Amino acid sequence: MGYTDLDQLAINTIRVLAVDATSKANSGHPGAPMGMAPVAHVLWNMMNFNPQNPDWANRDRFVLSNGHGCMLQYALLHLFGYKLTIDDLKNFRQLDSITPGHPEAHDTPGIEVTTGPLGQGFANAVGLAMAQAHSGGVYNKPGFELFNNYTYMFFGDGCAMEGIASEAASMAGHLKLGNLIAIYDDNHISIDGDTKCAFTEDVTKRFEAYGWHTEWVKDGDNDLAGIEAAIRKCQQVTDKPSMIKLTTTIGFGSKLAGTGGVHGNPLKADDAQGVKKLFGFNPEESFAVYDLYHKHAAQGAAKEQEWNQLFQKYQAEHKTEGADLARRLSGKLPEGWEKKLPVYKSTDPAIASRKLSEACLEAIHDVLPELVSGSADLTGSNNTRWKNAVDFQPPDLGIGEWAGRYIRYGVREHAMAAVMNGLAAYGTIIPAGGTFLNFVSYAAGALRLSALSRVRVIHVATHDSIGLGEDGPTHQPIETLAHFRALPNCMVWRPADGNETSAAYYSAITSKHTPTVMALTRQNLPQLELSTLESALKGGYVAVDTPNAAVTIVSTGSEVSIAIEAATYLQEKHGVAARVVSIPCFEVFDAQTKEYRLQVLPDGIPVLSVEACCTMGWERYSHEQFGLNRFGASGPYKEVYAKFEFTPEGISKRALATIDFYKGVPVRSPINRAFQQIL
Amino acid sequence: MGYTDLDQLAINTIRVLAVDATSKANSGHPGAPMGMAPVAHVLWNMMNFNPQNPDWANRDRFVLSNGHGCMLQYALLHLFGYKLTIDDLKNFRQLDSITPGHPEAHDTPGIEVTTGPLGQGFANAVGLAMAQAHSGGVYNKPGFELFNNYTYMFFGDGCAMEGIASEAASMAGHLKLGNLIAIYDDNHISIDGDTKCAFTEDVTKRFEAYGWHTEWVKDGDNDLAGIEAAIRKCQQVTDKPSMIKLTTTIGFGSKLAGTGGVHGNPLKADDAQGVKKLFGFNPEESFAVYDLYHKHAAQGAAKEQEWNQLFQKYQAEHKTEGADLARRLSGKLPEGWEKKLPVYKSTDPAIASRKLSEACLEAIHDVLPELVSGSADLTGSNNTRWKNAVDFQPPDLGIGEWAGRYIRYGVREHAMAAVMNGLAAYGTIIPAGGTFLNFVSYAAGALRLSALSRVRVIHVATHDSIGLGEDGPTHQPIETLAHFRALPNCMVWRPADGNETSAAYYSAITSKHTPTVMALTRQNLPQLELSTLESALKGGYVAVDTPNAAVTIVSTGSEVSIAIEAATYLQEKHGVAARVVSIPCFEVFDAQTKEYRLQVLPDGIPVLSVEACCTMGWERYSHEQFGLNRFGASGPYKEVYAKFEFTPEGISKRALATIDFYKGVPVRSPINRAFQQIL
Repeated sequence: MGYTDLDQLAINTIRVLAVDATSKANSGHPGAPMGMAPVAHVLWNMMNFNPQNPDWANRDRFVLSNGHGCMLQYALLHLFGYKLTIDDLKNFRQLDSITPGHPEAHDTPGIEVTTGPLGQGFANAVGLAMAQAHSGGVYNKPGFELFNNYTYMFFGDGCAMEGIASEAASMAGHLKLGNLIAIYDDNHISIDGDTKCAFTEDVTKRFEAYGWHTEWVKDGDNDLAGIEAAIRKCQQVTDKPSMIKLTTTIGFGSKLAGTGGVHGNPLKADDAQGVKKLFGFNPEESFAVYDLYHKHAAQGAAKEQEWNQLFQKYQAEHKTEGADLARRLSGKLPEGWEKKLPVYKSTDPAIASRKLSEACLEAIHDVLPELVSGSADLTGSNNTRWKNAVDFQPPDLGIGEWAGRYIRYGVREHAMAAVMNGLAAYGTIIPAGGTFLNFVSYAAGALRLSALSRVRVIHVATHDSIGLGEDGPTHQPIETLAHFRALPNCMVWRPADGNETSAAYYSAITSKHTPTVMALTRQNLPQLELSTLESALKGGYVAVDTPNAAVTIVSTGSEVSIAIEAATYLQEKHGVAARVVSIPCFEVFDAQTKEYRLQVLPDGIPVLSVEACCTMGWERYSHEQFGLNRFGASGPYKEVYAKFEFTPEGISKRALATIDFYKGVPVRSPINRAFQQIL
Repeated sequence: MGYTDLDQLAINTIRVLAVDATSKANSGHPGAPMGMAPVAHVLWNMMNFNPQNPDWANRDRFVLSNGHGCMLQYALLHLFGYKLTIDDLKNFRQLDSITPGHPEAHDTPGIEVTTGPLGQGFANAVGLAMAQAHSGGVYNKPGFELFNNYTYMFFGDGCAMEGIASEAASMAGHLKLGNLIAIYDDNHISIDGDTKCAFTEDVTKRFEAYGWHTEWVKDGDNDLAGIEAAIRKCQQVTDKPSMIKLTTTIGFGSKLAGTGGVHGNPLKADDAQGVKKLFGFNPEESFAVYDLYHKHAAQGAAKEQEWNQLFQKYQAEHKTEGADLARRLSGKLPEGWEKKLPVYKSTDPAIASRKLSEACLEAIHDVLPELVSGSADLTGSNNTRWKNAVDFQPPDLGIGEWAGRYIRYGVREHAMAAVMNGLAAYGTIIPAGGTFLNFVSYAAGALRLSALSRVRVIHVATHDSIGLGEDGPTHQPIETLAHFRALPNCMVWRPADGNETSAAYYSAITSKHTPTVMALTRQNLPQLELSTLESALKGGYVAVDTPNAAVTIVSTGSEVSIAIEAATYLQEKHGVAARVVSIPCFEVFDAQTKEYRLQVLPDGIPVLSVEACCTMGWERYSHEQFGLNRFGASGPYKEVYAKFEFTPEGISKRALATIDFYKGVPVRSPINRAFQQIL
């Protein structure tokens, strides 16, 4: 409390930096930073963080869900002394700067999560708050409040309209996340103008319906004490997340204040001048703002210091937990965890890969305490819950605890994916979440941000093809594998048997900066002769090696064993020798040496690909493609496979056509390319 | 009112049919049909429909958003006399039946929209209700209430958790859709069991916050009069959509009633027997149910008859509107509408394709009154609003009218896409909606249902590549074109200039059973020499024809003109002749004769593809691919293009590498394939 002219100067400094940076870039969104500067100033001076170490484990988290307003965040990071210089601000939205058009966590120190696509940051913040609750549940001991940070999040009308934020808000209410404080920039403006044209609901009442505590600050432009009081009240409410509706004026200070004109366009030159004049702005004074902010930053550094001492004491008194937490914070996996992954012999029984995935989770959850599983209300179908798993729930519900490692996401696929991004960003958790592969598409917006922001999340995507049978075309993915394979920095595994499934888990867990989608079957799969953990970890390998083969059949997942039967069929019925190759993960296979890849798909032999999904993308590995470029069908799965000819006979027919077509033509392996793609 | 034993028999008949069909299929969801049979019985006997003509324009619409409970709907359709026999019920979930695992509108008479993926039906129903309001606004006259039907929708806890349903509910509240009545099956069970594990919000309060009228029927299992009274009350509320919370027992009658065990699995044999015994079920009596239901169906037929007479009179008194409506209901487009599409000469100025799209909308909206445009809060960026467009809004807001043809979807991409599916399903509207291409991904779940259920919706997807510049990687699509090209029955157009954009509109509007994604630029594009409406409508054509070419460069959209510059550069700097091909739409090009496609991409010349997005999918048309298999960058767009070498020089370098690599090798056109894919 007791705000002075210096506070007002700080606020106006943030506003003017936002005006200048967007003007210089001739691009960007000045309105939100100008409107939210007051609350940002008050809040950041209440938050615990250390600009010298943006990774301090117990720092308060800040998420700007309305990421287009990122000049607000860049200005704060700069003024508080993060590694973000005035030149970085001048390079706003310029090529290869650390101040891109929307905040990117992997680019810029002090950015917790990548935001901009609306609603994502909201759900990320819920994930960060869950991660705090969980980490506190696991590690806190009497006298050792190692984890007690808050997660603060700003969101605007756009985020409030997005379904993903609704899902996440409902979830946060259910989970009673008292450590989450969301501040709603109620400025009545979105890109199309006044929100009265599309968004007239009672947002406060909706959040109360979700089980949130709410506050309303009516003059968010000027009432600094009111803002602080509201935040303090929310901090006192420990059994509910809090939402502060903050009524502000977008573009405060501009001639266009309170209109859509200031939302997504820089101010005109005279307007920018006017803002500075209005604020009586004298650049010299801004050094005082540095002093003010650096003083708070120094307090943050001291708080981290205290925390480090506490943690040292903790490690002495609670050796096991201390060592475990130190390891997790360092980003290292436990020594030898991978030895627990199941290994199979070809004589082992056929089993669905969703069950094989369950066996992996069952085997490793004990040695990998950072693994936190869950499902979007398909637990029994996704097989994501190990025996004796404890649910992550507020303890007073009597159905779980904060330290629980199984999350009931509800039927909220998009929020699940974004919450997992938040869980992963917190730094102590490896999240895995299940739904049907077809419904990972609901989460496409969040998964692309997992990939872009380089976080390790695992999508356990079961029922991965027409093989799910009776549920029919509404549930049978066709385009989905191609979609996620096309996404940069996303690993798509489609294992064919037990060893390949274990390899998928090994890859997913050791890929620290990459999300993984595991496409898993509902139906049983036999164990392959030549599959081993090692071969599968090359992403692709020879599953049936036949001398003098006339064709190579390349496949994934449930179709590999049918391709192997086809090879036998070709030999027995047609006297034709065929090789079979399994490529459970394109991305991993592509990373092998060209020499190895040419061994797997050699020159001189035409290649036929087989996958019971769309053929797109297979041209990279095959000359001819057999797939399904139409929607599936509802029926028992064997009948559906037969209808579309994914049978030994159907594959053989196409293999013979392929051999015939390339007869007498010199065949170059698809691995041979003229140049390297831009990766 | 005055319900008798016969009503109870009807209800129990529905329940038993659901039990028997799921048992016979050994698959499916008996629980929801058993719990919702009472409300279905009451409601359907209040609804106006004619089983003899499921397409009657003013029928009440029914949407089962919890589509997994489709045995409820199939039983009703059968009992009321739609073309769905008892044998069809026995074939539930069997191959090639009209009773698939989830309801598919194009398969089954009486199904309005394809549901199953949770939340979709909710938003579809909002679209259907909007379409009624709009059609009434356009056509109703004093004495001629041509359009006054209700839209009824059932939804469960799963739908209530989905973000898309939240978006659509907020939108329906804003729009005051008094013609929409949603019935919430409050049975406290989802697949993971009791909803208390994940979903504890106050749903009624949330809907009130959206501006809905709400009712609660506490005994949805037995209180038929209460159900009817609640529905009648909601019918009286004309300025708000209504939600009836109906507390029911899932699997009513089963030993597992009220548990998750009855949600997604058929009943055990003894339990099924027990249900029949409990209900004192005597199959003979079910004929009485037919009689009861057929009597109501006959009333529906009579109502349609009355409506047809009213419509005849309307056509006489309101000739213009009558003829227009008759045409729209027949599915025909106005004679010669396509002549309004703009045509360009190569000397016309360069212009962004989002502006070219605007020019199309401006040119055709007058002659095509069924076209209803809109945007997810990006109107000024998507250029989706023609001058003088009137907003679709409740009239009392003073910012539009029901007859308005511009929809303010708010920042609700997923709901927008599903609402458009509902608008299209109503039968009088062609919907177009805008957002950035990158955020069509938020709507992937709905777009796949557009494709599956074969509806004509148009996604105006602007800012289609790294060419959007400063907004950066969070907003720059990479995988998106591949994703939607991989989706069956979805047309993806990426026009390179004005004539190609007009072709895209021609194609989208004449594709009655296919959705279209139009990928449009933010940046200006020159008009191409050889582009014409006719050539573009072949999906692919020769844009630069050069004799004795050493390479063909194939491209789309904004990269075509750069490829043409590259061809000049190759000639001038290297004396190399290059052809250039533009393929604005893969799906349309694939539908041309092989002869034509081989003319465009002939044997003997290696092909290099160029597109500033991921390369996946281009292997179908090219030997070598130049694209971007990584995320983009924030910066002025020309610098971003230069960074990734999408320049005449960058393309030429790769063209030369391609020529070199295929030197001395007999080159087969990628069009030549060994066999036809399964389409």
